Amino acid sequence: MIDIRDRVRNSALHAKIVSAEEAAAIIKPGMNIGTSGFTPAGYPKAVPLALAERMKKEKFQVNLWTGASVGKELDGALAEANGIAKRLPYQTNEAIRKMINNGSIQYTDLHLSHVAQMARYGFLGGKVDVAIVEACAITEEGHIIPTTSLGNSASFVQDADIVIVEVNVTQPLELEGMHDVYIPKDPPNREPIPIVKADDRIGTPYIPCGVDKITYIVPCDLPDAVRPLAAIDDDARAMSGHLIEFLNNEIKHGRLPKNLLPLQSGVGSVANAVISGLVDSPFENLSVYTEVIQDGMLDLIDAGKLTFASGTSLTPSPEGLKRFYTNIAEYRKKILLRPQEISNNPEVARRIGVIAMNTAIEFDIFGHVNSTHIMGTKMMNGIGGSGDYARNGYLTFFFTSSVAKGGAISSIVPMCSHIDHTEHDVDVFITERGVADVRGLSPKERARVIINNCAHPDYQPMLLDYLERAEKATGFAHTPHLLEEALSWHIRFMQTGTMKK
Amino acid sequence: MIDIRDRVRNSALHAKIVSAEEAAAIIKPGMNIGTSGFTPAGYPKAVPLALAERMKKEKFQVNLWTGASVGKELDGALAEANGIAKRLPYQTNEAIRKMINNGSIQYTDLHLSHVAQMARYGFLGGKVDVAIVEACAITEEGHIIPTTSLGNSASFVQDADIVIVEVNVTQPLELEGMHDVYIPKDPPNREPIPIVKADDRIGTPYIPCGVDKITYIVPCDLPDAVRPLAAIDDDARAMSGHLIEFLNNEIKHGRLPKNLLPLQSGVGSVANAVISGLVDSPFENLSVYTEVIQDGMLDLIDAGKLTFASGTSLTPSPEGLKRFYTNIAEYRKKILLRPQEISNNPEVARRIGVIAMNTAIEFDIFGHVNSTHIMGTKMMNGIGGSGDYARNGYLTFFFTSSVAKGGAISSIVPMCSHIDHTEHDVDVFITERGVADVRGLSPKERARVIINNCAHPDYQPMLLDYLERAEKATGFAHTPHLLEEALSWHIRFMQTGTMKK
Repeated sequence: MIDIRDRVRNSALHAKIVSAEEAAAIIKPGMNIGTSGFTPAGYPKAVPLALAERMKKEKFQVNLWTGASVGKELDGALAEANGIAKRLPYQTNEAIRKMINNGSIQYTDLHLSHVAQMARYGFLGGKVDVAIVEACAITEEGHIIPTTSLGNSASFVQDADIVIVEVNVTQPLELEGMHDVYIPKDPPNREPIPIVKADDRIGTPYIPCGVDKITYIVPCDLPDAVRPLAAIDDDARAMSGHLIEFLNNEIKHGRLPKNLLPLQSGVGSVANAVISGLVDSPFENLSVYTEVIQDGMLDLIDAGKLTFASGTSLTPSPEGLKRFYTNIAEYRKKILLRPQEISNNPEVARRIGVIAMNTAIEFDIFGHVNSTHIMGTKMMNGIGGSGDYARNGYLTFFFTSSVAKGGAISSIVPMCSHIDHTEHDVDVFITERGVADVRGLSPKERARVIINNCAHPDYQPMLLDYLERAEKATGFAHTPHLLEEALSWHIRFMQTGTMKK
Repeated sequence: MIDIRDRVRNSALHAKIVSAEEAAAIIKPGMNIGTSGFTPAGYPKAVPLALAERMKKEKFQVNLWTGASVGKELDGALAEANGIAKRLPYQTNEAIRKMINNGSIQYTDLHLSHVAQMARYGFLGGKVDVAIVEACAITEEGHIIPTTSLGNSASFVQDADIVIVEVNVTQPLELEGMHDVYIPKDPPNREPIPIVKADDRIGTPYIPCGVDKITYIVPCDLPDAVRPLAAIDDDARAMSGHLIEFLNNEIKHGRLPKNLLPLQSGVGSVANAVISGLVDSPFENLSVYTEVIQDGMLDLIDAGKLTFASGTSLTPSPEGLKRFYTNIAEYRKKILLRPQEISNNPEVARRIGVIAMNTAIEFDIFGHVNSTHIMGTKMMNGIGGSGDYARNGYLTFFFTSSVAKGGAISSIVPMCSHIDHTEHDVDVFITERGVADVRGLSPKERARVIINNCAHPDYQPMLLDYLERAEKATGFAHTPHLLEEALSWHIRFMQTGTMKK
C-alpha cells in the first residue's frame, strides 16, 4: 500500500488507514453517497473503483451526489457496474449519459449552487449517508485539506455519518492554502456571505471535520483524469472578438469600468477560447469569479492581465495541469477555490456583478435558451452553474456557433425544444456571426436583432419568414408563434437529417 | 387647487407647487418616465391624467417604467391616449394588454427585482428622464414620504433630472414611518444587504431627494383604485388545505421550523385565498417577506398569527383598504414597505429562506411553468416577482386549478406553450386535486407524480398516454417528448375550443 502517513498529520489517525476495498465495504445498497469532485478534478478514485468491483459481484446500486461531473474512475466505473440508481446534480460521462437517456439511471439536473443546501434541508431523498472526499492531507486536528476542487465536499462531510478520506499522493501539498471553506447556516439563521471582491477570504483553508468524524482513510495515487481542450477554431475566435468589441463599447459608454467586472465563464472549449482571447484584449487588472478555472485563465495570469481567480475547481487540460503544477508557487497567490455553494451563489454573483458567459445548445428568436437537451428529449450534460450566474450577472451572455452538424442544425430556432434560461435572463447573444444585444427589448424586437445579427445566412430567411407569418397569424401578439410549426425544425431534423427545407 | 402646504414641510418648496397640467408640460416626446406604483397602490394619478390629455392633443409617446402594474389613471389613461411606446416591467391593465398583443406597445417583461438596477446601469435604453412619485408628504429637507407602495421610486428619483412629486391628500399621514428605503450601490462597490429577518430596518423612512432636486410638486386627491378580490372558491380552499397539510408534514419531519419560514405569496385572488386559509392553520408567529400585502395578511394579523409583514406594496381590496386605514395605528407596527429591489432580492430571499408561493397559468408534466402567456402567444400580465422568489426560496410552490374554462383547458399539459420557470426551480405543485412534491425527482418521476396528484381526472389518462408513448418512442430518454404532439393540446383548444379529444 502507498505510504501516506506523512500526509496524515495526526498519528492516531494512522490506524484508520485502510485499503480501498475495506472502505468500500462499508457502503450499503440504496445509500446516498456524496463525493468530492467538480469536473474531472478532485474526485475520489480508489474507493469508487473498489466499490464498482463490489457492485459487479453483488449487484446493488447507490445514489451518487457529487459537485458536478467527475472523472471516469467514479462516474464511468459505477455506471459500467450498473451501480447508480439516482445521479445528481451534473454529469458529462458517456456511459452515464447513455443510461440517463435509456431510463436506467434517474438523473436530477440541479442548479449547482442549490445542491448542498437541498441536501442539508433533506430535500433530495434522505440525507448524505457516506461522504467520500479526496484530500492532499489531513491536519493534526483531523481537518481535511482538499485537492483540485471543493464542490460540495464540506457540506457532505458535515452531514454524513460515515466519512471516507482518500489521500491522493499525486496532488501536490502546495495546494494547501488555496481553499476557502465556508458553509452557510440554514434559514432562519443564515447570515450575509461577506464576500465583496473575488479574492476575499471568509472561511478556513480546510474542510472542518475532526479526528473522530473520519471513518476511514484510503491512499490513492491516481491523478485527475483531466481532458484535452479542443483547438481554438475560427468560430470561437470570432466570438471572442465580438465579445471584446462589445465590452469595449460598454466601457466607452460608461456602462462598465475599464477593468470590467469579475468574469464568469462556463466550462468547455468554446468558453475557454473566449477567455483565452482576452489575452489579446486591451483589458487589464481583470478578476474572475467563476466555477471552473481552465487554461484560458492561466493564460491571462501569465499575460499579467488577471489579478485574481476565484472558482470551485481547477480543471485545465493535461498540458494546463502540468503548467499549473510546475508554477504552482506563483499561481497559488492568484487562485482560490471555494465551495460551489459560494462560488455559484446568486447573492455574491449579483453583488459583485459578474459578467456571466455561458454556452447554449440552442436559443430561440425570442431569447430563450436550451442548455441541456438535444432535440428536446436527450440529456446532454446538465444546466450546471449557468442559471446561478445568468440570472444574477451584471451582464449575461450566451454563446454558440450559429449552426451545428455541418450546417444541418441551426442553433437559432423558432422555439427552443427545451428551456433552461428564459427570455427574462439574457442580455446578449453572441455567435460567430455577431452580437445580439437584447437588453430592454420586447420579444418581437429581440427576434429581429437575433435573426439579423446571430443566425446563419442559410437560416435567416426561414426564421424571418416564420416570424412574419406568426405576427400576421396572431395579430402581432406579444410573442408571436405558430404552434403547429414552432417545433417543426427539430422534427424535420429528426426525419430528414437537416433543419433545411 | 387642493391645499397641500401643510404636507410640504419646507415652505421654500411651496413655490414649486403647480397644477398637474403645468407639471405634465415638462415631459417631452420619447422620454423615459419612471413612476412610483406597484399594483394599484401608490402610483401618481393627477400628472398622468394631465399628460394623457396633452397626448390626445399633441399625439406623442413616452416610455413608461413603473414598479409593477399601476392603476387606470396611469396605465389606462396613457394607453387610451396611445401615449406609450414601450412599457416595462409589468402590467395588468386591459387597455395596455390589448395593445401589447396587437403590436402597438412594445412590452419588456422583467424580473421585478432587476428593474431598478438595469435602469441605473443604463441597460433599458437610456436613463430615467422624469420621475413622478406619489407622496404623503415632503420633509423639511426635501425628502419624500411615500404612500402605499415603494416599488422603484427611490432609484428613479435618484437617477432622474426631473422629479415631480404628487402629494396625495387621500393617503393618511400615518403611513410615515412604514417605509424602509435602501438603494444598493452598484458593482463593484455593492455591499451585502444587511437583512436577516423580515422586520430588519436598514434604510431611511423617506426617499432621499433634497429640496433642490424637486422640480414640481402637484396636489392630488384621487385615491388608489384598488380592486375587489374574487370570493374564495372551493378550488382555492382545497389548495390552501393541501398547503397546510404539506407544511405540517414538513414540520413533523424536521424540515421546517414550527413557525415556518417567511412567507412570500403572489398577487391575486388565489394567492390571497391561500394566505387567508392560514388563519385556520395551527401555525403561529408567522412572518411574511413578499412583494404585495393583501387582505389575507391583514386577516393573519387580526388573528394574531402574523408577527411581521415586509413588502413593497399594500394593496388590499376596497374593504381591506378601509380596514387598513381604520386600524392603521395597529397595522403600522407590523408592516414595512421596501423598494422592490430589496423586497424581491434573491440575496435576501435565499438567505432568510422564503416559502415562495406563486400561481401558474399552466405547468407541464416535467415541471416547467408558464406564468405569462395564453396559448404561448398572448401576454397576460407578466412574470412579476415570481422568478425572484421561486428560484431562491427555501421551498417553492406553484398553484393553479387543474382545469380552466369550465374544463376545456387542462392546466397540466404535455409541454408548456411558454416557459417562465424551469424544471430546476420548483419544489411542489398544488392544484385542488392534490400535491406533487417533485423535490429531487428526475423528469420521468416528476411526470407521474404530477399527473397522478395534480391533473384533473378528465385529462389524467391523456397525459399518461402521452408520457408512455413518448417514453417508448424515445427509448426512455431523459425528458421523453413527442415533438409532433407536444403542443397539440394548445392547438386543439384553439381549433376546437377544448383540449379534450
